Amino acid sequence: MKEVSQKYKTPVLFIDKKKLRDNYRALREAFPDFRICYAIKSNSDPGIIEILRQEGSHFETASLGEILFLRSLGIPGEHIIYSNPVKSAESIARAIEENITEIAFDSLEELEKFLPYREKAKLIFRIAVPNEGSLWPLSGKFGAPEYLWDDIFEYMKNEGLHLYGVTFHPGSQAELLTAWDAAMRVAWRCIDEARDYYGLNPTCLNIGGGFPVYLGREIPSVHQIAEVVYDHLRYWKDHEGYEVQELICEPGRFLSGSAGYLVCKVVGVARREKNWVFLDSGVFSGLMETIDGITYPFETTSTGNKERVIFCGPSCDSVDKMFEVDLPHPKTGDKICFSGAGAYTTVYASHFNGFEPPQIVYLEEVKSPHELLELVG
Amino acid sequence: MKEVSQKYKTPVLFIDKKKLRDNYRALREAFPDFRICYAIKSNSDPGIIEILRQEGSHFETASLGEILFLRSLGIPGEHIIYSNPVKSAESIARAIEENITEIAFDSLEELEKFLPYREKAKLIFRIAVPNEGSLWPLSGKFGAPEYLWDDIFEYMKNEGLHLYGVTFHPGSQAELLTAWDAAMRVAWRCIDEARDYYGLNPTCLNIGGGFPVYLGREIPSVHQIAEVVYDHLRYWKDHEGYEVQELICEPGRFLSGSAGYLVCKVVGVARREKNWVFLDSGVFSGLMETIDGITYPFETTSTGNKERVIFCGPSCDSVDKMFEVDLPHPKTGDKICFSGAGAYTTVYASHFNGFEPPQIVYLEEVKSPHELLELVG
Repeated sequence: MKEVSQKYKTPVLFIDKKKLRDNYRALREAFPDFRICYAIKSNSDPGIIEILRQEGSHFETASLGEILFLRSLGIPGEHIIYSNPVKSAESIARAIEENITEIAFDSLEELEKFLPYREKAKLIFRIAVPNEGSLWPLSGKFGAPEYLWDDIFEYMKNEGLHLYGVTFHPGSQAELLTAWDAAMRVAWRCIDEARDYYGLNPTCLNIGGGFPVYLGREIPSVHQIAEVVYDHLRYWKDHEGYEVQELICEPGRFLSGSAGYLVCKVVGVARREKNWVFLDSGVFSGLMETIDGITYPFETTSTGNKERVIFCGPSCDSVDKMFEVDLPHPKTGDKICFSGAGAYTTVYASHFNGFEPPQIVYLEEVKSPHELLELVG
Repeated sequence: MKEVSQKYKTPVLFIDKKKLRDNYRALREAFPDFRICYAIKSNSDPGIIEILRQEGSHFETASLGEILFLRSLGIPGEHIIYSNPVKSAESIARAIEENITEIAFDSLEELEKFLPYREKAKLIFRIAVPNEGSLWPLSGKFGAPEYLWDDIFEYMKNEGLHLYGVTFHPGSQAELLTAWDAAMRVAWRCIDEARDYYGLNPTCLNIGGGFPVYLGREIPSVHQIAEVVYDHLRYWKDHEGYEVQELICEPGRFLSGSAGYLVCKVVGVARREKNWVFLDSGVFSGLMETIDGITYPFETTSTGNKERVIFCGPSCDSVDKMFEVDLPHPKTGDKICFSGAGAYTTVYASHFNGFEPPQIVYLEEVKSPHELLELVG
C-alpha cells in the first residue's frame, strides 16, 4: 500500500470493496438459484449498496424509511422486498405504490391490513423455526408457531388472499448447520399443510439470513449451508413433487460484516482492580453488539508484556463497556483494528455524549488489517 | 388545552417547559449553595439547554463534541465543566483554550496529560464510592479506589499539579438515600488525606448527579438528599474546621427526565405464546434504557379487558423488545404515552433499520399525560 500523507481521524470504518464483492460472489456461487436480497439494516451506507447493486443484488427492507432511502438511490421497487412481518397500514400502502409487492406477515392482525391489496400483494408467511446456535435468536418476536397456521390459512382462503411464499429466519449469526436443517423441515410442514388442507399454493421460499461471519469461533461455510438447503429442495421435488419457483435469501452480516474493519485509538488507560482501556469508539459509537457478547478479532500497535484489560468506550455511561482481552501493555495513542466489523456497527451508532459515529472510508482492497493501523493518525 | 388542527406524527417526545423549570427550581431550593451543572448527555436538545440557561444553569460535559456544541449555542466556557475522567490530550488542550478549566481525572495516566497546564487546570479528582441502589452503577469504569489515592497525591505534589476538588457519582438513578451518605464519608476521607498527608488543598466538592426521577418505585426527594449532604458539610465545618468553597452538582435525568413524555403508536399486534405489541418507538429509536430494566409509567387509549403483553419496537432486531405490562385489549392505532421519558431517550436514538428518532415538541405546560394522547395523529 502506498504512503499516505493525510491520515484518517479515528474512529474509521474501512470497507474493503473487493471483500464485499467476493462475499457476494461466494454466496451467489453457493446459492445459484436464489435471488440475493441484501439486508440493508446491517449496513446501509450508499457505497455498499452501490457495489452490491453492481453485483446484481436485490435488497431486503424492514421499514418505509429504508424503502424510501433505496428508492432515492434509484433502486427499483421490483428489486426490493419488505420483510418486516409487522408494519403500519400507511407503510404497506406506500410500499405497494412503489411496486414493492413481496411482503412478509406473521399474524392474523397483520393480514387484515392486506385486504385492500388482494390483487397486488404477494404475501410471504413468516414462520417460527428453532434458533439454536444463533447469537441473536429471533424466536418469539417474529414468526408464527405451528399451532397458529390453521387460523392463518383459513383466513387467507376465506378472504381470497394470495399465499405467495413461506419464509423463516434461523437467527442472526447462526453458527450451527443444524439450524437450516431444522428450519427447512418446519418450512416443508407449512408448505404441505397450506397446499393439502387449504388449496393455497405457495411458490416462493425465502430462507432469510443468519449466514455467519468469522468472529473467532468455528462456523459453517455458505457452501455447507447451501448443501443442507439444496438437499431439502431436491427431496421436496423428487419425493413430494413440489418444486419451489422463486428462491430468496436475505444476507446482511455475511456480505458486509467481514468487509469492514473498525479502527480506533486508545484515549486513556486506567489501571485499577481491572485495567480499563478507553477507546474512541464504544457501545454508542459503533460497537453496540459487544453488549450482547460479540467480541471482534483485532490487531494492535500496542507492544510489551500482555495484560488482561477491559475495552470500554469513551462516554461517561456505565453501559459503555465492551469485552476483556489480553493486550500488550496498552497506552494512550495505541491503535486497535477490529475485524468483522462491517455489519451492525455504524448503523447502531448515535451521537450520544457528543461522540460521533465512525466515518466510513472505502478501500479497493485490504491485504491485512495491520496495514490499516498505518492509515489513521 | 386548545383544539389542535394539525396532529403530530408519532413518535414524539413532548417537553413540558414548566416542569423543566420547576425541576430546576426544586433543585436550586434544595441545594442553594451549589452550582448546578446540567449533564447535557441526558438530553442535549437546544431548547432544553436554552430554558436551563435562562434559569441560571451551568453545564456538565463529557466530550469535546459536547463542549463545541455548547459553545456554538453561546454558552461561555466558564459555565462549562468537563467531567469525563478519561479523554484525549487534544480534547483537554481545546477545552482549556475555550476557558473550560474545571476538569475531572481519576488515574495517574490521565494526570500526565495535564502537565502542560499546571497553571490553568483546576483538577477535580473522581473517587470511587459505593453505588448501591443505583439502576446503573458506575463503579469500576470510573473513580479511583482508596488504595490508589496515595500514588495520585504523591504524583500531584511532586509535579506541582493543583488538586482543586474532589468528585464522586452515586450512580445514575440512585434510589437509596444511603448512597449519598456513604459517598460523603468517602469524600471526606479523600479530602482529609490530601490535606493532612500531602498538603494539597482541595476547595471544591462536586457531588455528581444520580438524583432519581419517579419511575414507578419510591424514591428519595432532592430535599432529603440535600439534608444528608448538608449534614456532612456542616460536620466537616464544625468538627474538622474545613469549609468547602465551591459546591457543584451535575443533575441530568432529574432535570430533563420528568419533563418529557414519549408518545407513540401501536403499529401492530401479534398474539402468540406472548402477545407482542409493536410500537413505533423502540430500543433503537428512543427507549434504549428498557433493555437495562427501566419501565416507564404510561397512559393509553387502549380499552377493553386487560391482557399481559410485551412492548417491542418496530425494527426487525430481536434485541428490540422492551417490557411486559398489563394493557387493555391492544390494537393497531392505539396510542401510548410514556412518562419520565425526557432523559436518556432521544440521545440514544439512531436511525437503525430506517426508523427515525422521535421529534421533540415543546409545550408550555402538560396538565396530564392523557391530554398528549390527543395531540398525536
